[in-house]
Amino acid sequence: MHSYSYPITVKAVWWDDSSRRVCWINTLKLPFEEEVVCSNDPVRIAKAIIEMEVRGAPAIGVIAALAVAAYASKLAGENAANIQEKLHEAIDLLWRTRPTAYNLFWALERMRRKIASASGLNPRELADALVEEALRILNEDIEANIKIGEYGAELVREGATILTHCNAGALATSAFGTAEAVIRVAWYKGKKIKVIATETRPLLQGARLTVWELMKEGIPVTLITDNMAGYVIRRGLVDLVVVGADRITREGFVVNKIGTYMIALAAKRNNIPFYVAAPTSTIDLNSSIRDVIIEERNPMEVKTVMGRLITLENVNALNYAFDITDPDLVTAIITEKGVVYPPFEENLKKLFER
Amino acid sequence: MHSYSYPITVKAVWWDDSSRRVCWINTLKLPFEEEVVCSNDPVRIAKAIIEMEVRGAPAIGVIAALAVAAYASKLAGENAANIQEKLHEAIDLLWRTRPTAYNLFWALERMRRKIASASGLNPRELADALVEEALRILNEDIEANIKIGEYGAELVREGATILTHCNAGALATSAFGTAEAVIRVAWYKGKKIKVIATETRPLLQGARLTVWELMKEGIPVTLITDNMAGYVIRRGLVDLVVVGADRITREGFVVNKIGTYMIALAAKRNNIPFYVAAPTSTIDLNSSIRDVIIEERNPMEVKTVMGRLITLENVNALNYAFDITDPDLVTAIITEKGVVYPPFEENLKKLFER
Repeated sequence: MHSYSYPITVKAVWWDDSSRRVCWINTLKLPFEEEVVCSNDPVRIAKAIIEMEVRGAPAIGVIAALAVAAYASKLAGENAANIQEKLHEAIDLLWRTRPTAYNLFWALERMRRKIASASGLNPRELADALVEEALRILNEDIEANIKIGEYGAELVREGATILTHCNAGALATSAFGTAEAVIRVAWYKGKKIKVIATETRPLLQGARLTVWELMKEGIPVTLITDNMAGYVIRRGLVDLVVVGADRITREGFVVNKIGTYMIALAAKRNNIPFYVAAPTSTIDLNSSIRDVIIEERNPMEVKTVMGRLITLENVNALNYAFDITDPDLVTAIITEKGVVYPPFEENLKKLFER
Repeated sequence: MHSYSYPITVKAVWWDDSSRRVCWINTLKLPFEEEVVCSNDPVRIAKAIIEMEVRGAPAIGVIAALAVAAYASKLAGENAANIQEKLHEAIDLLWRTRPTAYNLFWALERMRRKIASASGLNPRELADALVEEALRILNEDIEANIKIGEYGAELVREGATILTHCNAGALATSAFGTAEAVIRVAWYKGKKIKVIATETRPLLQGARLTVWELMKEGIPVTLITDNMAGYVIRRGLVDLVVVGADRITREGFVVNKIGTYMIALAAKRNNIPFYVAAPTSTIDLNSSIRDVIIEERNPMEVKTVMGRLITLENVNALNYAFDITDPDLVTAIITEKGVVYPPFEENLKKLFER
């Protein structure tokens, strides 16, 4: 097993080598139940992504890669025919689960390339190669998160209060988190930080997941409703904002959980830094903001809270899962390769050239 | 009975003359149950205000005035001693129910003055005088709301989409609403408007009350989560924002339901008008923003949705009920005396001098 410079207290997605399956925590049931699911069936895993048992851009990328590896292992064990074709079908299925987060496409593209480069191998060898590649993606993710945490923590002063939105924590990655990596490393370095977490409607990732993760670590956390973020910033209760990202375009537009944009506006208005923490696998230098599809999810998510109706059943509702934060609202992007400041179009390009 | 230029489809608070009690819809149970409560007990009515069975700045002012009248009627019927003293005690109790909305203090001050001017009257005559004054406050409120609607509707173009926050509707006033008066009159005038309503956590006044009121009228309404407001504005789906107010200071700061500030920031950023609809009883020319107390309510409201826990029970939570929107974010304030544009400090003063 890999060893890391910091404790890994929560894993969202992992590989079970004995059964050659991918396992994950069903985040929909947290914090009330810690349900673990393991599977080698791409249909089941696609469902887990669509229904957000597993969510968060890096976690989606990792589970999709592991799904391909687990399915290849299953097919090898069954002596199936047309394995490569079946794997490509599985990749296509996983590809269509969610449209916005970039890491999904980035990870599946890597798995495609690995299949293409493995044409001389037998099914068992192909499966092994794919497991190895998927585990490389997983471990790179954790290592990247730790690096993000280290770069980010340098931006956090002793005693600071950090506002974060949604969950860009261990449960949004394979482990350790992105925005939460910054929080974790600052905490491990003894900076005595505090966190304000937004509940993050409709699915309450802040109230359910971020609160659970931070309380597990003993990091002081205060929950607010999403609409309170602006006022707590205006009141001077927040020193900096750190959020994750689902996609960063070449111009430096940040696509992240719905609500991020309004927090960025409040941060700008009140002159506090607004940081985005994301691995380079979230940055797509080929995509412009005009290419980004903002996922619209089932309106019932808005009309209910944890399955219970909060309004009249037949009312219309909109359910955009993400929003777009303009580059001028972003103080810096914290990646595993370093902290990127504006102008982002130029400096993101330079980052990838390193 | 009074007659009005528009249909009064929903009343939030009214006087039951046969029992000499004040009646209200318990808005906490809407839209699932339409519970009506009637009382002449100031302790019960104070509880209804504190627990937000009745909410919305104008509605709070009206019910507090009617509470004094109902209690005076009760005391007169019982031939009680020290009636004036008891009424002042009731006023003090009602005064302390909620600290932010100005209309409460404005209405109770009027009732105090009426008691002071009625020293020669017997208990029955005093009660009648107080009922008359409270009903004057109620009818002035409805008339003011209709005027607000008429002034406001002139600012709404045919086919416009209006975003509103919380409930500044009939259920926030005696009837007709403030922000919703603008919506109603525009609708009655055939302007084919649409409304986007924010759910308004923690107590969901948008999802529960605004949706219910607008669907009753047949006005097209789409529900969003609070954190979606910025993105739907940025996406160009909103032509104007209209919200109510709980207090407007002499400088033009608008104190309104938590979340208003972030919507105002998004409106400003995207160059759409941000209107505040409020009767002059919400404007306190004597108060500066430094005098305003922002109510902090029970954190359990944040940690639950309709009574059900959404996070870990022992997490800290903040629960500011209101926020502050700076004057430079406000396009205009729509009152029953006309539309006030910046500079607000100067023009609000002129409005009261008319």
